[in-house]
Amino acid sequence: MHKDNRKRETLDLHRAYRGKIEITSKLPVDTEEELSLVYTPGVAEISKAIEENPDEADELTSKGNMVAIVTDGTAVLGLGNVGPKAALPVMEGKSLLFKKFAGIDAFPICLNTQDPEEIISIVKALAPTFSGINLEDISAPRCFEIEERLKEELDIPVFHDDQHGTAIVVLASLLNALKVVKKTKQKARVVINGAGAAGIAIAELLLYAGFSDITLVSLEGTLRKGEAWMNAKQKNLAERTNHDMRSGGLEEAIEGADIFIGVSAPGVMNKEHVQKMNKDPIIFALANPIPEIYPEDAWKAGAKVVGTGRSDYPNQINNLLAFPGIFKGALSKKVRNITPEMKIAAAEGIAAVISENELSSEYVIPSALNEKVARAVARAVEESVEDRVERLATC
Amino acid sequence: MHKDNRKRETLDLHRAYRGKIEITSKLPVDTEEELSLVYTPGVAEISKAIEENPDEADELTSKGNMVAIVTDGTAVLGLGNVGPKAALPVMEGKSLLFKKFAGIDAFPICLNTQDPEEIISIVKALAPTFSGINLEDISAPRCFEIEERLKEELDIPVFHDDQHGTAIVVLASLLNALKVVKKTKQKARVVINGAGAAGIAIAELLLYAGFSDITLVSLEGTLRKGEAWMNAKQKNLAERTNHDMRSGGLEEAIEGADIFIGVSAPGVMNKEHVQKMNKDPIIFALANPIPEIYPEDAWKAGAKVVGTGRSDYPNQINNLLAFPGIFKGALSKKVRNITPEMKIAAAEGIAAVISENELSSEYVIPSALNEKVARAVARAVEESVEDRVERLATC
Repeated sequence: MHKDNRKRETLDLHRAYRGKIEITSKLPVDTEEELSLVYTPGVAEISKAIEENPDEADELTSKGNMVAIVTDGTAVLGLGNVGPKAALPVMEGKSLLFKKFAGIDAFPICLNTQDPEEIISIVKALAPTFSGINLEDISAPRCFEIEERLKEELDIPVFHDDQHGTAIVVLASLLNALKVVKKTKQKARVVINGAGAAGIAIAELLLYAGFSDITLVSLEGTLRKGEAWMNAKQKNLAERTNHDMRSGGLEEAIEGADIFIGVSAPGVMNKEHVQKMNKDPIIFALANPIPEIYPEDAWKAGAKVVGTGRSDYPNQINNLLAFPGIFKGALSKKVRNITPEMKIAAAEGIAAVISENELSSEYVIPSALNEKVARAVARAVEESVEDRVERLATC
Repeated sequence: MHKDNRKRETLDLHRAYRGKIEITSKLPVDTEEELSLVYTPGVAEISKAIEENPDEADELTSKGNMVAIVTDGTAVLGLGNVGPKAALPVMEGKSLLFKKFAGIDAFPICLNTQDPEEIISIVKALAPTFSGINLEDISAPRCFEIEERLKEELDIPVFHDDQHGTAIVVLASLLNALKVVKKTKQKARVVINGAGAAGIAIAELLLYAGFSDITLVSLEGTLRKGEAWMNAKQKNLAERTNHDMRSGGLEEAIEGADIFIGVSAPGVMNKEHVQKMNKDPIIFALANPIPEIYPEDAWKAGAKVVGTGRSDYPNQINNLLAFPGIFKGALSKKVRNITPEMKIAAAEGIAAVISENELSSEYVIPSALNEKVARAVARAVEESVEDRVERLATC
């Protein structure tokens, strides 16, 4: 479809429906009798039951299945700091996906403040209505503090999708891609280009999952113990990455790498970079819509497995594969935190949707619209929680 | 139905459905093509359009039809300060009513703070997602400051239903009741028993509507110029009420009154009180579920028109008659404030749903389930806005 036609179509659609979500009733309220059960005077019994035992709110209200999609509009899609109103259509879209893939009710909360302390205290005050908090499109490094503090201070799971959703789907794709190229996570050299929220979360999850040789490259240079320009998160990671203490940029880091993961900017990778990598390189070029390198170019330069954020190429690495199932599992088990173990279980759950027979260089990750995925992820998360409970019980 | 059965039924219903509201999609998202229009990459066009012109959020997102039902759980129904979680089932019930009677999407926001400054700053930060704020079940006098500050500081309408919804429906009922007893608002003596949020709002609206002889009685005594125990709101009202400077309590105030409006406590009115009133007294005993005086007793003592908050007696005075239509009119005209003129127009709109022929002492106010009412109220509010615009244009 021509680009202007598509723009016109999406504007017309949003205008005709006046946005995408609505609040509807799960129950009939047509008669005096029905009204008296769901509203006054009957509803007083529900309030009393919850006052007596606040946990009952999960079962007697919409809270148990309700997630807040919280943003301040500072890092929306590729658009940047567009503010809370312009972020709303994206959060509404996300709400539809929560419902479609996981049956979860998700309400967009677009905040008119960019102050981390204020965001933290607002989300804490809002928490009684929700059973999970999905942080979305909040710029780094503010997103780190906001997520960490909320995880500590709230008793419901808090998940910054731009960090952990991306990390989970990258890990899932890597697990399958390594099988295709017959390499192991213990030996593969990984280069992550981009050391912002997503790059850092990917590095942390890969380390936790058992990858041992990771190097992160940022615009300022390669993360390396002792570099002065690094922020706290980056300093911490530098202790556990870039063991051979490379300096310079992508040019130097990519030499001899097995895996390239780009969470950076359009076109920053070229064929020469790919040719400097080890045999059968894996390239995940996730800048969207224009990747770090187009698949055609990567293939020509010898890449074996190529993934992007786009739906018009093989191996679309899309957060949509993770967040609905993660929250579905977390809500069903009423967990307080989404742990690294659950994230790894989720990644393995996504990867396992593709059988060994189906697996190929052009099919390492399921389609974003594959409805099996959220169920598989939820089940994997639930099992990981059950395992943990069992382990604790036998300690 | 037996009380225990009803309790069981309402608990079972809430548990079976896990609360009452859900977030649903207005659009299909079944294909890759549909997904690309409502989410990435198409949704970026919507964000850009809103970034360019923030008012477009009203048309291109759910914001234009979305109201927040905000509470801190401090004054829930007759239950008192039950907290935000126990308030949630009531707010969900309210959401159903917004949708059923006005087609408005209303989302419950139950806050885990009772600090007015914090509530004000949270609601201001949440505002980008909403086109109206319905404050609910927030205790006095905190509710006054919260509402006034938010009205000043936000550019969307803010409406504390416990105050103004009640006042509007009382005024509507009074307009019709006065016709039944052939008295006028200019001459009728009104006694309002209860000088909290609802009593004060009723007094203010009646004064604005042209009632001239009003006396408010509180637990501390009768509001009277110079009394030291009054709060700021009460002091202000004392300047404009109780012209004959009565002191004492209900006993003294009720003597010779034409209208009794109780927003106080069960059973505080007795037959002797009614007998001390003028001929053909009007009694609105709104304490719920046990009124200040039961209709049977009021009728026996000579009351001509009796209204309560209950659905099992004639003349149920129920906020449900006001808030859906008020917000419907306010949202359709995109007003910044709900003015006293709009409230009076709403009351007249409710009153006019009953034709002169139908009007009787047992039918001064339409049924809470009469779906004509919200439409009539919305139209009345819209016309009042149009009149105002016209008057300003001809100035």
